[in-house]
Amino acid sequence: MTIINGCPVSQKSYVLQGKAKASGLWNLFMPKESDPGMKYGTGLSNLEYALMCEEMSKCPLSSEVFNCQAPDTGNMEVLVRYGSTEEQKRQWLTPLLNGEIKSCFGMTEPKVVSSDATNIASSIRRDGDHYVVNGHEWWTTGALHPDCKVCIFMGKTDQSAATHKQQSMILVPMDAPWVKIIRPLSVFGYLDYPSGHAEVLFENVRVPLGNMLLGEGRGFEIAQDRLGPGRIHHCMRLIGNAERALEMMLERTQNRVAFGKQLAAQGTIQQDVAKSRIEIEQTRLLVLKAAHMMDNYGNKVAAPEIAMIKVAAPNMAQNVIDRAIQAHGGAGLSDDFLLAGMFAWARVLRLGDGPDEVHLRSISRLEYKKHNLAKL
Amino acid sequence: MTIINGCPVSQKSYVLQGKAKASGLWNLFMPKESDPGMKYGTGLSNLEYALMCEEMSKCPLSSEVFNCQAPDTGNMEVLVRYGSTEEQKRQWLTPLLNGEIKSCFGMTEPKVVSSDATNIASSIRRDGDHYVVNGHEWWTTGALHPDCKVCIFMGKTDQSAATHKQQSMILVPMDAPWVKIIRPLSVFGYLDYPSGHAEVLFENVRVPLGNMLLGEGRGFEIAQDRLGPGRIHHCMRLIGNAERALEMMLERTQNRVAFGKQLAAQGTIQQDVAKSRIEIEQTRLLVLKAAHMMDNYGNKVAAPEIAMIKVAAPNMAQNVIDRAIQAHGGAGLSDDFLLAGMFAWARVLRLGDGPDEVHLRSISRLEYKKHNLAKL
Amino acid sequence: MTIINGCPVSQKSYVLQGKAKASGLWNLFMPKESDPGMKYGTGLSNLEYALMCEEMSKCPLSSEVFNCQAPDTGNMEVLVRYGSTEEQKRQWLTPLLNGEIKSCFGMTEPKVVSSDATNIASSIRRDGDHYVVNGHEWWTTGALHPDCKVCIFMGKTDQSAATHKQQSMILVPMDAPWVKIIRPLSVFGYLDYPSGHAEVLFENVRVPLGNMLLGEGRGFEIAQDRLGPGRIHHCMRLIGNAERALEMMLERTQNRVAFGKQLAAQGTIQQDVAKSRIEIEQTRLLVLKAAHMMDNYGNKVAAPEIAMIKVAAPNMAQNVIDRAIQAHGGAGLSDDFLLAGMFAWARVLRLGDGPDEVHLRSISRLEYKKHNLAKL
Amino acid sequence: MTIINGCPVSQKSYVLQGKAKASGLWNLFMPKESDPGMKYGTGLSNLEYALMCEEMSKCPLSSEVFNCQAPDTGNMEVLVRYGSTEEQKRQWLTPLLNGEIKSCFGMTEPKVVSSDATNIASSIRRDGDHYVVNGHEWWTTGALHPDCKVCIFMGKTDQSAATHKQQSMILVPMDAPWVKIIRPLSVFGYLDYPSGHAEVLFENVRVPLGNMLLGEGRGFEIAQDRLGPGRIHHCMRLIGNAERALEMMLERTQNRVAFGKQLAAQGTIQQDVAKSRIEIEQTRLLVLKAAHMMDNYGNKVAAPEIAMIKVAAPNMAQNVIDRAIQAHGGAGLSDDFLLAGMFAWARVLRLGDGPDEVHLRSISRLEYKKHNLAKL
Repeated sequence: MTIINGCPVSQKSYVLQGKAKASGLWNLFMPKESDPGMKYGTGLSNLEYALMCEEMSKCPLSSEVFNCQAPDTGNMEVLVRYGSTEEQKRQWLTPLLNGEIKSCFGMTEPKVVSSDATNIASSIRRDGDHYVVNGHEWWTTGALHPDCKVCIFMGKTDQSAATHKQQSMILVPMDAPWVKIIRPLSVFGYLDYPSGHAEVLFENVRVPLGNMLLGEGRGFEIAQDRLGPGRIHHCMRLIGNAERALEMMLERTQNRVAFGKQLAAQGTIQQDVAKSRIEIEQTRLLVLKAAHMMDNYGNKVAAPEIAMIKVAAPNMAQNVIDRAIQAHGGAGLSDDFLLAGMFAWARVLRLGDGPDEVHLRSISRLEYKKHNLAKL
Repeated sequence: MTIINGCPVSQKSYVLQGKAKASGLWNLFMPKESDPGMKYGTGLSNLEYALMCEEMSKCPLSSEVFNCQAPDTGNMEVLVRYGSTEEQKRQWLTPLLNGEIKSCFGMTEPKVVSSDATNIASSIRRDGDHYVVNGHEWWTTGALHPDCKVCIFMGKTDQSAATHKQQSMILVPMDAPWVKIIRPLSVFGYLDYPSGHAEVLFENVRVPLGNMLLGEGRGFEIAQDRLGPGRIHHCMRLIGNAERALEMMLERTQNRVAFGKQLAAQGTIQQDVAKSRIEIEQTRLLVLKAAHMMDNYGNKVAAPEIAMIKVAAPNMAQNVIDRAIQAHGGAGLSDDFLLAGMFAWARVLRLGDGPDEVHLRSISRLEYKKHNLAKL
Repeated sequence: MTIINGCPVSQKSYVLQGKAKASGLWNLFMPKESDPGMKYGTGLSNLEYALMCEEMSKCPLSSEVFNCQAPDTGNMEVLVRYGSTEEQKRQWLTPLLNGEIKSCFGMTEPKVVSSDATNIASSIRRDGDHYVVNGHEWWTTGALHPDCKVCIFMGKTDQSAATHKQQSMILVPMDAPWVKIIRPLSVFGYLDYPSGHAEVLFENVRVPLGNMLLGEGRGFEIAQDRLGPGRIHHCMRLIGNAERALEMMLERTQNRVAFGKQLAAQGTIQQDVAKSRIEIEQTRLLVLKAAHMMDNYGNKVAAPEIAMIKVAAPNMAQNVIDRAIQAHGGAGLSDDFLLAGMFAWARVLRLGDGPDEVHLRSISRLEYKKHNLAKL
Repeated sequence: MTIINGCPVSQKSYVLQGKAKASGLWNLFMPKESDPGMKYGTGLSNLEYALMCEEMSKCPLSSEVFNCQAPDTGNMEVLVRYGSTEEQKRQWLTPLLNGEIKSCFGMTEPKVVSSDATNIASSIRRDGDHYVVNGHEWWTTGALHPDCKVCIFMGKTDQSAATHKQQSMILVPMDAPWVKIIRPLSVFGYLDYPSGHAEVLFENVRVPLGNMLLGEGRGFEIAQDRLGPGRIHHCMRLIGNAERALEMMLERTQNRVAFGKQLAAQGTIQQDVAKSRIEIEQTRLLVLKAAHMMDNYGNKVAAPEIAMIKVAAPNMAQNVIDRAIQAHGGAGLSDDFLLAGMFAWARVLRLGDGPDEVHLRSISRLEYKKHNLAKL
């Protein structure tokens, strides 16, 4: 097993996964409210799991070790909550829960601004006892993984329905005929193997009627639901990344000297450290508040906080990691340290799951709404 | 009574003070741990009082209405905790608690960087049964108020003692001979009457030995203690100011049109609103955490959080209020709205009670220390 | 004569004005292209005068000493270029050029967003051989000065004309019946006496037909023209203010010690100094480029650069001065130094002559336009 | 020939190089003052070449097409100015000028902060008629290129000499025994083939005495000289990159719709465009001023400006490109556009040739020095 920065790195760490499963540290992500009987997971609240996300994120491998890697986590939760048939669960949910297969999620299209769901061009058309799926997707994370067996695909079933009733979600086996992986996409040069981001073409792919999730026209509803907890997880991972970056910065600056003085003794480095500490603390508290609200009041009430953290956390992490890179000198940009990769990921998350601009717009609209109601 | 922006404004609002006292909403600031028997106040925790500071700050008059105005609050707490004699309490504490007199605090000198306590040049020299006090102070807030009767004065009693044992605090009656108020100081043109900031000269002022607080050489200790809760109060007031500014911004932008569109409908205004909301939420959570820690673990453990909020809150408030001013146009700079005054005060607090730089330095030092210990 | 910070300060510095006039350093602002025969001024180009603005701004008094104070400069230029009659020039221009009277400019209204000229509610209605002027103005800088004798007033003469042909400019004597100064307005706490900012009511003020400038419906045209050079002057003054602030910061930090080290030796102060130097240099070059373009290609071609400097210079100055204040400690907020006043003025100019947002919008539109043309 | 984003991309574009050479557009970088007789280049001034750097940078291939790629440009100039022997020129300079070989530059060591030249651990020890070179270098850009034949290597010849007389520069053939390329280094995920960044070990490498440049103890002197123009070139390339990014942003936002509105019509995008335009203009002017000063007053006088642009340009470019990425959505992070790669390079240049912090420190020191002299 290779060790980098204190973290074991391997293609597939069966040994660690076995240990994790044996210890009951498996499928930690499944929230109590989706799984009240703790049938699938360990019954942690969003708040509890958020704290574990922070810890797991400090080592690149650990999400997978505990079967807590995106996008499988969100996909499993969708299957638990919205899987329509036992067959769906048997075929996809169980092997995902066991860590035997992987999955991907297709709702980002190269030709339109996908953060506006009304733009979706992919289609799911009924034809006899099948649906015919057509779509050009990209940033389909995980699709390249050799174990990826299924895609949760979002497309329009009815262009004439109400704006948010046009979309549906359907399960598409990745080995179905006419599912074509066109190419991998890089993020700042990173391909993120083995589970990188793919451009995928679905051309008249036929899937059985039973693969529809929840029902036609309910795709937007599922998406809204799926994204809430996923954003909290992402944000707490960013907190963990930022903590790790700060820790590396503290260590590096104690071991380097410039112009006759330890870097750690230089006022500008100290200010960078202190600002990073403040920003991390503030953001963590906000993410934990969002998780607490989701646990206690549900997704809808927690919507403003979820939008806020989705802006705050990636920006904070980008800044904190940028400072850590700077303190490392050239080394910080190489892969000898985790910093460059973490930076790239923080930058991705200012766009993924909705760009900053979309969330800021939502926050503002909720703010004006709240203010008007207050005046009534 | 004049009403500006929904807030009553007067020189001295006896009527409101009477109502507040009658309702038991009086001396709310006195923390439980200083006053466990609720002899002087209402026994609120720092956390509880912090939330009240936020509310009170939304109306400029209210601190005084509830006898919660700085610097009297800090001074009263010092007298409760460190007042050495019953006479001190009878003479100064009781009338302060009753709102009959006011006080000031002298530890900022024009000739040195006062945030470094070792720089203090003021002296308190024993001479028979008196101390002889000499010092040139400024930014002595409250000294100009006609009811200001006493100054808690910091000076060195022993230049040869250990660095942080040289300073003492002593009560100096403001009507003692050779206490001379030289002039008021303005903050961005504001004189903050009636309780503005004075430059004060103490020339061979003789005060009885009984006026010493806690004991010679313990001034630094008192200062450290005094500043913790004071910083939380200041920071929560800044949160309230920022909330008020954001509220004004929301209202103003709904009532103004430029280039054919309500300001509230413009993306840039919306982004300013959303960023302000995020920054306020994050900072409030951090201030409440600091209050919670002080309540449960004491000043010393809460030191990093107190330093963090002292940087975060004024900077946040300055930014949020600056955006609100911008959205108001020229009006925002005038005194038709509270914004310009609140901006000035937020700017003061990036310097008052220690400039940002000093707190960032402390945070960084604590961070390196924590990190080293973690490695043992 | 009182000297503050090396600058003489007085209500009216006749002596210095006399010396300036005698040396030919008088009315330096009048640009060659408005006054090719050097009949009114010294024939400096915008570029040459810009550099003098920078120097003059370092001492608060000097604009007036050289008869180069706003808004009189802009008003005089309007009279030179657009004054319709010899009578107008005799009555107002000559005494302004001689420094015998002062003037003000009225185009900002409290009830609307005035940066959008279509919002203007003030009216100029013809009635026989007079115009009847009605309007509620504020931020009418200079109106409070005892020598202020005339207002260039902008109002609509024809609501039904094309959008930018509705406005006209007219000369209104300040001692005309029914011109009422309601009150002074403060900027932060500054009243800027003797030539502060007034709220002024014009109620059915009758002025002779001959007071119209250029012609009915040409007010917007004059405004566009007037504001170009005015913005360059403002921006160069801000450069000078920032230079002065940096100079004060360099001096102060060499004379103060904290935590055993001269402030000037602390890395964070050094970084503030260096960033300020970079920002000043960049902004000065852009302002000089704008002046050069205006001199050589005219206002219209220079429009993008003028919009850019109007955003860049006040923001730069606000930042640089803010850092200088921070380095001064509390002193920086008082009026013992020029910093607080200069800060207030830089903040004003993020709103005055059009808020940042309006200029950023123009820059963007020009950019898209340029890009499209490039593709043709 | 593959075309990406309007730019031809190939491993080695012999055809284009041939055309460039035939047109006399070859070795444009060689500054007049190094080559007054235009023996080696085209005799452009730094100012003239700076403008060409901007243009060339818009297409990734073009530096190489015109034989203007770093680090060869700097190395060729060193050979012209400081090459001690005809043999050195014949063996290395001529083929470099012809584009037949490539070179690298070794002065960055993994074990120390290399921006402080006193930290250098590499050694050049005389042994009979050879020098023995030992050193562990990294970020040796170009070393991986198959045509890379020579390294200009910096090491200490005399540890006991004055601080800046200890270092020397020597030519080390890359095929000399015991020059070992350990591995390529990535920047984010980019390896920048074919001319990426290597970690290289020099173990007792023996080179003839004649390979010394200028003379023992003069390495620091050469380095100072070499870096000035190189920084201007880098900075102008960053300007070009930022211009290209802005252009891409303008185009992309005109072709995308979100929430019922073209992105280009959204206020927040417009503000990003306008801010980018301002920042680019300001930085370009400063870089051109630095080039002008270097042309007219020499490296030493231009030192403050060169330090300023080295901070300003990469930070500006990072910001502008970051905004362009954001406007592109996920696409901006992929290699379908040039943005991610340009971002990575801008980030490198906040560290390469000295990190921001070192240059800010220099600027500040020059500022204090200037201020003191001004007071004499």
